[in-house]
Amino acid sequence: MQRLQQQMGFLLEIDQLKNILRQTHVTDSSRRENDAEHSWHLAVMAIVLEEYANEKNINILHVVKMLLIHDLVEIDAGDTFAYDEKGYEDKEEREEEAAERIFSILPEDQADMIYALWREFEDRETAEARFAAALDRLHPMLLNHQTKGITWQKHDIRKEQVLSRNKTIAEGSEDLWEYAQAVIEDAVENGYLKA
Amino acid sequence: MQRLQQQMGFLLEIDQLKNILRQTHVTDSSRRENDAEHSWHLAVMAIVLEEYANEKNINILHVVKMLLIHDLVEIDAGDTFAYDEKGYEDKEEREEEAAERIFSILPEDQADMIYALWREFEDRETAEARFAAALDRLHPMLLNHQTKGITWQKHDIRKEQVLSRNKTIAEGSEDLWEYAQAVIEDAVENGYLKA
Ligand SMILES: [Ca+2]
Repeated sequence: MQRLQQQMGFLLEIDQLKNILRQTHVTDSSRRENDAEHSWHLAVMAIVLEEYANEKNINILHVVKMLLIHDLVEIDAGDTFAYDEKGYEDKEEREEEAAERIFSILPEDQADMIYALWREFEDRETAEARFAAALDRLHPMLLNHQTKGITWQKHDIRKEQVLSRNKTIAEGSEDLWEYAQAVIEDAVENGYLKA
Repeated sequence: MQRLQQQMGFLLEIDQLKNILRQTHVTDSSRRENDAEHSWHLAVMAIVLEEYANEKNINILHVVKMLLIHDLVEIDAGDTFAYDEKGYEDKEEREEEAAERIFSILPEDQADMIYALWREFEDRETAEARFAAALDRLHPMLLNHQTKGITWQKHDIRKEQVLSRNKTIAEGSEDLWEYAQAVIEDAVENGYLKA
């Protein structure tokens, strides 16, 4: 049962993802969402929006797996806000150390498997990773729009920043980038986001 | 874009799953977990524990999809506590109505797909559904054990109830049922659960 003990140790360790808060708020604006909820929401988005991936016949299980584990490193490294330039300076180093500690709680073969999924997501060199990353960018925009721009206003974010930060959505899905741009326009028109 | 609008409407609607609280607490005991976090945790469990499914070569994507959507009906129907006999009386009817309302926000083909996944999970007649249901039963036991039995004590639950309620884990995974019984024994020995 040594193997199963390691697996259970990992599964209990990652429960902490439920306490890593993001800047984004849930749609009723009552509170900030956490990384576990965010990861769940992204996985469902992948299943529902699969048809909009630029490349057809992507491996959707692979996309879902990446999305479920992509934020685990934030248990140690914390959530870095998308528009926090200083936070990005040592983000890679902090996350690499986190990946090594957290994933190696698992038996070696599974530690390698999860590490490979995480690296693939970060590197965005496969069609699956580009689609997964597109959803990860789209998701906070949807919630920000829905909550009348709480996070955009709090951090004084402008339309150009949102466009520039999120234009890589097009690499994963032209259709979803088109949709995202319409959401941004609507946010500006309604005063949720500064022009 | 009518189709994409419906899909986005669904994805925003199900954000409410983040506000449906379960009886179980997160591992640091600070608060009750919600259904979105629970669904995320189960999906990761499926990926890590796949090798313990009774039937080999199950379709793990199918298992993950069922787990991601299995609690959506609770947005309308609420979470029914596992040991609440009265709550179970009209549970099926409440959940069936919820499934019809929530899933039909999607385009018809996807509404049918999600409904079929949910029915399959509830009916437990496929190997995938039995494994998914086993994880859904195992998960709160792990968290209850980890939080020294908060929920068991609050509701005055006894070992026999936990054994009787959860023995169907064996239908999905003999190995995980063996592990679960050891967790229950340990909980009794430590005073987290009444004998
Ligand atoms: Ca439930």
